[in-house]
Amino acid sequence: DASRDVDESIIEKFLAELDTNQLKENLRELTKVPHMATTSGDEATVDFMLKRWQDPNTGLDSAWREDYKVYLSFPNKTITWFQNSSNEKLFHLREKVYKPDQEDPEVVQPFAAYSPAGNVKGKLVYANQGKMSDYELLNTTLDLRGTIAITRYGGEGRSKKAINAARFGIVGVLVYTEPYDMNDGLVSESETYPHSWYLPPSGVERGSYNIDFGDLLTPYLAAKDDTYRIPKEDITGIPPIPAQPIGFEDAERLICELDGDDAPDEWQGSLNCIYKLGGPGFKATSTFSNSNVHLDIYNTERLEYSANVMGIIRGSVEPDRYVIYGNHRDSWVHGAIDPSSGTAVMLEITRVLGKMVKEGKWRPRRSIIFGSWGAEEFGLIGSAEYTEEYFSKLSERTVAYINVDISVFANATLRASASPAAQSVIFTASKQVNAPGTTTTVYENWKQYSNRTSPNYGIIPNVGFLTGAGSDYAAFMHYLGITSMDISYYYDRSKTRARIYPAYHTAYDTFDYASTYIDPGFTSHQAVARTAGNVLLRLADSLLLPFNCSDYAESLEQYLSQAVTAFEEKLAAKGISMESLKKAVQLFRDTATKLDRVIRDSDLAKETPLKARQINDQLMLLDRAFLDPLAFPEQYGFRHVIWASKSSSVPTFPGLADAVEKAESTGLKEDWDQAHKHISIVTQAIAGAAHTLDDVI
Amino acid sequence: DASRDVDESIIEKFLAELDTNQLKENLRELTKVPHMATTSGDEATVDFMLKRWQDPNTGLDSAWREDYKVYLSFPNKTITWFQNSSNEKLFHLREKVYKPDQEDPEVVQPFAAYSPAGNVKGKLVYANQGKMSDYELLNTTLDLRGTIAITRYGGEGRSKKAINAARFGIVGVLVYTEPYDMNDGLVSESETYPHSWYLPPSGVERGSYNIDFGDLLTPYLAAKDDTYRIPKEDITGIPPIPAQPIGFEDAERLICELDGDDAPDEWQGSLNCIYKLGGPGFKATSTFSNSNVHLDIYNTERLEYSANVMGIIRGSVEPDRYVIYGNHRDSWVHGAIDPSSGTAVMLEITRVLGKMVKEGKWRPRRSIIFGSWGAEEFGLIGSAEYTEEYFSKLSERTVAYINVDISVFANATLRASASPAAQSVIFTASKQVNAPGTTTTVYENWKQYSNRTSPNYGIIPNVGFLTGAGSDYAAFMHYLGITSMDISYYYDRSKTRARIYPAYHTAYDTFDYASTYIDPGFTSHQAVARTAGNVLLRLADSLLLPFNCSDYAESLEQYLSQAVTAFEEKLAAKGISMESLKKAVQLFRDTATKLDRVIRDSDLAKETPLKARQINDQLMLLDRAFLDPLAFPEQYGFRHVIWASKSSSVPTFPGLADAVEKAESTGLKEDWDQAHKHISIVTQAIAGAAHTLDDVI
Ligand SMILES: [Ca+2]
Ligand SMILES: [Ca+2]
Ligand SMILES: [Zn+2]
Ligand SMILES: [Zn+2]
Ligand SMILES: [Zn+2]
Ligand SMILES: [Zn+2]
Repeated sequence: DASRDVDESIIEKFLAELDTNQLKENLRELTKVPHMATTSGDEATVDFMLKRWQDPNTGLDSAWREDYKVYLSFPNKTITWFQNSSNEKLFHLREKVYKPDQEDPEVVQPFAAYSPAGNVKGKLVYANQGKMSDYELLNTTLDLRGTIAITRYGGEGRSKKAINAARFGIVGVLVYTEPYDMNDGLVSESETYPHSWYLPPSGVERGSYNIDFGDLLTPYLAAKDDTYRIPKEDITGIPPIPAQPIGFEDAERLICELDGDDAPDEWQGSLNCIYKLGGPGFKATSTFSNSNVHLDIYNTERLEYSANVMGIIRGSVEPDRYVIYGNHRDSWVHGAIDPSSGTAVMLEITRVLGKMVKEGKWRPRRSIIFGSWGAEEFGLIGSAEYTEEYFSKLSERTVAYINVDISVFANATLRASASPAAQSVIFTASKQVNAPGTTTTVYENWKQYSNRTSPNYGIIPNVGFLTGAGSDYAAFMHYLGITSMDISYYYDRSKTRARIYPAYHTAYDTFDYASTYIDPGFTSHQAVARTAGNVLLRLADSLLLPFNCSDYAESLEQYLSQAVTAFEEKLAAKGISMESLKKAVQLFRDTATKLDRVIRDSDLAKETPLKARQINDQLMLLDRAFLDPLAFPEQYGFRHVIWASKSSSVPTFPGLADAVEKAESTGLKEDWDQAHKHISIVTQAIAGAAHTLDDVI
Repeated sequence: DASRDVDESIIEKFLAELDTNQLKENLRELTKVPHMATTSGDEATVDFMLKRWQDPNTGLDSAWREDYKVYLSFPNKTITWFQNSSNEKLFHLREKVYKPDQEDPEVVQPFAAYSPAGNVKGKLVYANQGKMSDYELLNTTLDLRGTIAITRYGGEGRSKKAINAARFGIVGVLVYTEPYDMNDGLVSESETYPHSWYLPPSGVERGSYNIDFGDLLTPYLAAKDDTYRIPKEDITGIPPIPAQPIGFEDAERLICELDGDDAPDEWQGSLNCIYKLGGPGFKATSTFSNSNVHLDIYNTERLEYSANVMGIIRGSVEPDRYVIYGNHRDSWVHGAIDPSSGTAVMLEITRVLGKMVKEGKWRPRRSIIFGSWGAEEFGLIGSAEYTEEYFSKLSERTVAYINVDISVFANATLRASASPAAQSVIFTASKQVNAPGTTTTVYENWKQYSNRTSPNYGIIPNVGFLTGAGSDYAAFMHYLGITSMDISYYYDRSKTRARIYPAYHTAYDTFDYASTYIDPGFTSHQAVARTAGNVLLRLADSLLLPFNCSDYAESLEQYLSQAVTAFEEKLAAKGISMESLKKAVQLFRDTATKLDRVIRDSDLAKETPLKARQINDQLMLLDRAFLDPLAFPEQYGFRHVIWASKSSSVPTFPGLADAVEKAESTGLKEDWDQAHKHISIVTQAIAGAAHTLDDVI
């Protein structure tokens, strides 16, 4: 029946079936062994996903694997050492064993993926977060050439810490987890895991040290066997000098021995000393006196086959419309929280939906595609290659992408980032789910923790913008322009300063950690499964897509207002007007209102199904209308003119913000011209999107 | 009724109503005065189009104008002269008057639009067609630095004749119409217009001397008042040195006085002398002896408002699907054939359709958009700006674009170039129209004049590929990836060598010329109106879009076979395999066959309208799937990986062909890498398109 709408009783049944025990057992199974991309542990999870999705009673219509041949980086006995009297090898190749999990030989030693191999040495300096401004400050008093910098995580991208450093002649970079930032200042073993959720002194945050996402050798081309690969020398966005992450136990030995001036107050941390900048190098009184720090990195890069596992439920009415739900499968170590908490949720959703399908009780209006992406940790590779290979088909037909990576950071509140079009469906879903540990809904609870005042709705939960490339939504939102969202349960920001859950990307992110400290009852996992699953069902089953274009208008108005406040005077002084942009935003508002009215005044169940399809196409393609493949020529995959990543801190249109920032710093006419150009680009994109909301002819 | 299909009785009625007298009167009205873009004559045609399309009895649902502020080039008393004894001003600022039309003060003097202004002089050389190979040949014996080159039209783009010249130090370029190429060798006034269709000795082909299409200051941005404009210095693809077109009367005086060696046989022509290369400069015995040729060009560039006139007929069932039919409105002078023969056809089609709509007898299933584009002669500007402004809306919804510019070159046969998807509907339409002056159909007549052997169909008329940017289809086909076609009536290639109809872009392209020598009874106009109009109705009214994806497969196989023949060995020698490309083409063939079977096995009138829509979306978006906005970064607007323009003469995938050509000439590893890259690009595009034809899920 083409006029079939979402069935609330199906949603209720679905919500009721999502089971905390199943979630827990999913997580236990997924985290038995480390499953870094393309390792034997990863292969085991591929088999597990396939077994579940091909289960005759609870599986999907079909499931299969798709492999890409991708460029990965692996460590090999990297060591960092001091040239002190005994040539001491100081740094730990493994994190300390507290539980059997850490003993697994498959635990990969901490490393900075895509750091070049190399043996470098130099006097040490402390460079805070490794931002350009940090190095500039150091550079006013120190000659940084030939030094090694120790930096802390946060404030700047991993790779940028090294890229920035190299511009000052620094030859190697260490990156450590500062307990002030991650452990609320706690440093002792008795206060950290396994005694709390905090990171033990030897814990090291692994990570991919790159800027671009997707396989680095095959931008815009799916990485098949005989796909053209760019020369390795042409890869951009990876460290030009060796880099290595370390734990704060090791960092303390280094930082607390440094010579030189006191570091600024904001650079201080919780290690047991006053942080100094370095002589460069250590204090004369240190046992390391006069030592160089050596960084011997033996990373190697290899092409490996990485699998996406795909599963589908065929739509009954509009099989050619896709709702995609995904998460990566690969972890750095056991990855209980990142990503297996999300995979556990995805598997529980597919179990319940699969059962309904197999029992003949339900089939969605639209098709649902589930993706278990490979090699996300190395740079969102599996999802990016998938979007490259199926670009046209996905662009034409995909209604939305739902990403649930880390599903539970903590137990306090829902967190969501999304295209503004999806705000309303997330709200609808979150109003139908009880918040664990409360007597209220996920929606009301969320509103207490994080809210904003909307001109239209008053106080509502704050849905973040999907401006970065932090997980697999990036290729869908930025490259394909598909309305996307990223959903998780999160902590109470007033209770901790932790940058992220403290075991992130370490050997302590295990089932024991997750089930002891993160979500013992798996009720937050359940709340996320219910909320994200509810969104999924509404997107798949609603006669009219539950997207709201007026909410989009509100976000554009917010961005416009920020742009006017921050830039209008400066631009006017250069003869550049913002009027066209204002008019475009107004046109968008007007046409959004018009489409809302058409929707309100239509009784679609009584019209030809083509009428609903027409409006749905307008809604489905709304985010697509903001794409401009030439707007950001330097940034792989960023085509969405509104949400692209930017370096400026002004929360507004990214191309304009970055162009003005650059023009102000250089003062060059040609850079102000670029600001003008970016006004024209975003104006045309917004007006072009508005035209798609207007009367169709 | 959502399952309504095309009504053959409506088509018959439509064909019968198309009237030769109306066509003739349209042409008479359109060609009363010269109507170069943005002149008062152009404004008059805007008013005329609006009046016709807003007519209460025969007009469209609505019609309006849309203006862009575009960068145009105008002449100003340009002269070319010799520094002989009397400093003779040789060249004619106006073409000779044979009829009152040539006396109109609004006849623009011959010029090379976008040639820079400048006063240059130098000794003359004859450079054939101004190809790189022509200048290279000259350069083996002559020092070209500081010379002026005289070249003939044809063989190379207008602008490239000057761009190529500048690379050899040549300081100015003259371009003339060679009577061998255009007049079948005839040169005397008694044998040329007004005594025949041939070009009189003083006739000069005007033209735009640029490579890129669209407004040159606003690539990818619609040229509104405050749109960012690139600096004029950054315009690429226009002559770096002054250029000027002249007639063969003037050319003869120059070429026949040249000194130096005899030009090669293939460089000779029909002027009354042996063509020589130039000393450089003239023979000692010439009255010009030792003279420099002076080129004093006073072209000026201005921003002017150019109008598109738009008109629509709203679709009844799928208003959000567009069939676009267009032609430019602007001419160089009176433009009877170029473009008014096409505009006359468009107006006759809209008259008949408008009448049926106004009388309530018919309304198309899909919406029809008519576009009367401005400033095409300067570089397809109106249509390109339109596609830039409405990029998203048009990409999402446009089923096809039909271009009828010059509708009648001559009376012999239909000519069509198109995306292969549209071959079948053009055939269907052409079988329902009688060929003027014959007892057969347009289809059968066409097959006699131009045919090929199709593996699938046997001998069929030859539909050309839309590989260039010769008229307003360019932005639709290449930039938007919309299935496009270009239709006209053409001459018998065995009867004339004329590059194009001889009055092309001259002051002789008048109503008198057209109605005396091109199509006196307007029956060829009528045949084109009937064929193109029939195609339009089928695209607008068919329940299932009349596109054929297996015909597309045949074209891809043809291209593949050419590529294998020309390149496979050379590539293999460099370790580059074509297997992935072969597999992609095979996959395309397989999925096309599969979709054809789905279509054959469906009784769409009995299914939900969403089933037809699903297949129609697959067909509508087929050409879109071949777009890659990064495949040809140097060429504005060329995004279609199969049909993009190329410089190689191998009739195959353009990116690959050009890359191999370059790699062979340089021998560089990095250039062979680019060939590999282009195999990957075209492979991914074809496989991606194949995925869209496969089962939708
Ligand atoms: Ca890739
Ligand atoms: Ca433009
Ligand atoms: Zn993750
Ligand atoms: Zn991660
Ligand atoms: Zn034309
Ligand atoms: Zn023309």
